[in-house]
Amino acid sequence: MVKLVAQSLLLGLYLQVLAVFAVDVHRLNIWPMPQSVSNGHQILHMSKDFELMTQGTKYPDASEILKDGFSRLLDVVQAAHVVDGNFSHFDQSVLLQGIHVVIFSLNDELQYGIDESYKLSIPAAGNPVYAHLEAQTVYGALHGLQTFSQLCHFNFTTTVIEVHQVPWNIIDQPRFSYRGLLIDTSRHYQPLPMIKKVIDSMAYTKLNVLHWHIVDSQSFPLEIPSYPKLWFGAYSISERYAMADAAEIVSYAQRRGINVLAEIDVPGHALSWGTGYPSLWPSKDCQQPLDVSNEFTFKVIDGILSDFSKIFKFKFVHLGGDEVDTSCWAITPHVKKWLQKHALNESEAYQYFVLRAQKIALSYGYEIINWEETFNNFGDKLSRKTVVHNWLGGGVAERVVAAGLRCIVSNQDKWYLDHLDTTWPEVYMNEPLTNITNPKQQELVIGGEVCMWGEQIDGSDIEQTIWPRAAAAAERLWSPYDNLAKDPRQITGRLAHFRCLLNQRGVAAAPLAGPGRVAPQDPGSCYMQ
Amino acid sequence: MVKLVAQSLLLGLYLQVLAVFAVDVHRLNIWPMPQSVSNGHQILHMSKDFELMTQGTKYPDASEILKDGFSRLLDVVQAAHVVDGNFSHFDQSVLLQGIHVVIFSLNDELQYGIDESYKLSIPAAGNPVYAHLEAQTVYGALHGLQTFSQLCHFNFTTTVIEVHQVPWNIIDQPRFSYRGLLIDTSRHYQPLPMIKKVIDSMAYTKLNVLHWHIVDSQSFPLEIPSYPKLWFGAYSISERYAMADAAEIVSYAQRRGINVLAEIDVPGHALSWGTGYPSLWPSKDCQQPLDVSNEFTFKVIDGILSDFSKIFKFKFVHLGGDEVDTSCWAITPHVKKWLQKHALNESEAYQYFVLRAQKIALSYGYEIINWEETFNNFGDKLSRKTVVHNWLGGGVAERVVAAGLRCIVSNQDKWYLDHLDTTWPEVYMNEPLTNITNPKQQELVIGGEVCMWGEQIDGSDIEQTIWPRAAAAAERLWSPYDNLAKDPRQITGRLAHFRCLLNQRGVAAAPLAGPGRVAPQDPGSCYMQ
Repeated sequence: MVKLVAQSLLLGLYLQVLAVFAVDVHRLNIWPMPQSVSNGHQILHMSKDFELMTQGTKYPDASEILKDGFSRLLDVVQAAHVVDGNFSHFDQSVLLQGIHVVIFSLNDELQYGIDESYKLSIPAAGNPVYAHLEAQTVYGALHGLQTFSQLCHFNFTTTVIEVHQVPWNIIDQPRFSYRGLLIDTSRHYQPLPMIKKVIDSMAYTKLNVLHWHIVDSQSFPLEIPSYPKLWFGAYSISERYAMADAAEIVSYAQRRGINVLAEIDVPGHALSWGTGYPSLWPSKDCQQPLDVSNEFTFKVIDGILSDFSKIFKFKFVHLGGDEVDTSCWAITPHVKKWLQKHALNESEAYQYFVLRAQKIALSYGYEIINWEETFNNFGDKLSRKTVVHNWLGGGVAERVVAAGLRCIVSNQDKWYLDHLDTTWPEVYMNEPLTNITNPKQQELVIGGEVCMWGEQIDGSDIEQTIWPRAAAAAERLWSPYDNLAKDPRQITGRLAHFRCLLNQRGVAAAPLAGPGRVAPQDPGSCYMQ
Repeated sequence: MVKLVAQSLLLGLYLQVLAVFAVDVHRLNIWPMPQSVSNGHQILHMSKDFELMTQGTKYPDASEILKDGFSRLLDVVQAAHVVDGNFSHFDQSVLLQGIHVVIFSLNDELQYGIDESYKLSIPAAGNPVYAHLEAQTVYGALHGLQTFSQLCHFNFTTTVIEVHQVPWNIIDQPRFSYRGLLIDTSRHYQPLPMIKKVIDSMAYTKLNVLHWHIVDSQSFPLEIPSYPKLWFGAYSISERYAMADAAEIVSYAQRRGINVLAEIDVPGHALSWGTGYPSLWPSKDCQQPLDVSNEFTFKVIDGILSDFSKIFKFKFVHLGGDEVDTSCWAITPHVKKWLQKHALNESEAYQYFVLRAQKIALSYGYEIINWEETFNNFGDKLSRKTVVHNWLGGGVAERVVAAGLRCIVSNQDKWYLDHLDTTWPEVYMNEPLTNITNPKQQELVIGGEVCMWGEQIDGSDIEQTIWPRAAAAAERLWSPYDNLAKDPRQITGRLAHFRCLLNQRGVAAAPLAGPGRVAPQDPGSCYMQ
């Protein structure tokens, strides 16, 4: 009976939420759409001395994550216009004096699965008037500040920032705990300021994992102190990241609530490793996959993961494992001999390699993400701590979760951003839980990720190839299923508004009309393109 | 005799400069190339406490233009990597402690024709070692700091910034006093952060005029307090600039040594004016050119220029005057009547309009820039304070300066950046003084400008459409003719280096290989694309 009551209550709450949305969802310009929203029709003016108040919260903010987040809030809401209004003629009762933030958890370690929920309320009256933001963690509070920033509007007459549609009551939390974006710094080097700009915009859309595909066959830009010749595989002396640079990326992201998932893609996609250590190549004529027969190969992987563990504190490490063409092993004499000695065929050797790399990662406390080929070939052998990263197409997640493993969805036909012909509605409509109805299995789909592969992406075009399409995926991953548009045409205006907001914040998000990173076809308003 | 001696001295100096370049020019990565450079082969390390020293200078820097410029210098040289080296093991004698800046003029008013020269020397030894920068004006000093920033390199081993190739002796000044870039905020609105980013990069290339084509037929985004309905012609309520926003652009640019040239393009290209004031249209069916027969038209122009004069302090205002199709006037009854009354044909009425607008501008203390059609149609009638802005093609500057007027070169076949098929070598090779040999006439070509027309340019693609091609023009306009490459292939590497530097500073400059704003075709190093 208790359960039934609870269900009725939940249903009641659900219907209430639906009712709220029935009224509001089409005219609210918030992206991604929160779990539940109610609002009014009044206006408050943001005080000149708009302040962060933290009275009553035990969270000490020793590392100033909240303070910096608040400071960024002020920056973004004032980025597009000069705010120099005369406040003397405003009555106190219509001035929003600040935001009162209460955070319950003292712990500000960012990690997979932390509570990212928040509640934001902005009353229409009070003396003085404060917005109120409550969150379990500082990272939930940062999400709340992002939402707050989207409620702010510049008034050209008063030259003051206004909060429209008060009172607001927003209750919000993510649908999926893993909401990722991949960047690829091997095909093209991305300078630090570019990566930081991507992180900034990820925070605007509440994405929370930067999957850093650091190295690949084309170049090895990262310093690995244990094996310092690895970055001989960099394109040039300046297209490199020192370990301190990588640590800076991690710290910059973490302070914005974003985890960094580091990847080494083995045993394929690793040709550049051999520039510094040629013995990692089976031979000069066979430069990949990495030499499975050489103990040194695993020593190097161990060294890399040891170095990784010092700065990449995310629970997961990505070990790749995709597109491994092992034919080269079989025709390289010493590898062939080793295969024979160990009675392994090529395919078994691939499995041996992946599982051994997994063990090394586990020994450093990581759980593992592998591309789906590992699951497709020997799924039952993978560590149970593996998350399978789907990319080849649809239908994989179903099989992965049926096998009891966790899954991240990045099916290339919809969520590869380098596929320029994939338009934002296709990105938006890609549902990670397609055909997965069992709630236990649904839980195993921990989220998804859009992938910005770097073959044709450098510092000149990364922003507009990512945005606004990644924002479409971000809403799919954040908002409750029932709040998602069933027809993307319903939300074109809201996404257009968000992309214009990105432009107003200095982010080079492309027009919506057309394929990825299209230039505007004709003169016109940002909101119509 | 005195003259001959002076000429010999000059010739000697000239040969000496050539000699210096014969050694260095192909391996120096400075953009644009300075007038004269000599350097050595030693290395200094930039001290952790690298400081701005201004001892002995009378310039008070009350507005902190120099101080902010120095602070930006530190930011850009540290943007790409974490500088956290251990300085304790460096000897004092190899540490560069700071830069000693001496500025002779107390006046920091930015204006057309100010002295932008500087001398920068960095000794190889000293105790302590300081770079030395001398300039007549603070704006010359800012150029010197830009040059200095390009001599800095990050050392991945020490994680310290180094200055290579010391000792340096650089003497520099611009070839042309007007080095412009046009942006167009009528075809697409550009948010403030986008315009600021463009200004930042202009400073990197020593461009000094932002030609702001604010309004046109498609939209009227700017607030005009005298005629507040004009910005009813904006695309939307948020795609507007308050006067304070425009003042912020001017101030932001000025503090970086960049003048803002405001334009109203009359009598054509002004359809949007009528949204708020329909009587500016000859009729509903004839919405441009502006109604020449209506006194109100000139009142509005007067109001705009009066408001302009309060914030746009540049010596020049641009009055457009191009592409005027007057056929509509002749078929609008009341205009036709007015033409008859004043015994003007359409073409004479066009002239009447332009000259009357010129008089209004002159009354506010402006000198005038007009597009070349005004010169082509009635050049001898134009105010002698007119600068003719060439755009239709080559050969115009010759005729303008032969007529004794000043000229700015923007021939569309080479210097229109929206022509994506114009590659950087074509931009680079466009010589403003082509066929102008008389030194007096050469002086009348005050410079040139690359034009980033906005039909297909919004916040998503402005940076990579401008850069690196605008940088090619910037060198043409800055460096002495004899230092310019006669074959652009000689400088591909240096420009590639500069575009990679832009990327490292967060500017989305496009690859060199291919047409404008091309995406990289394949994986590879920034320096090779």
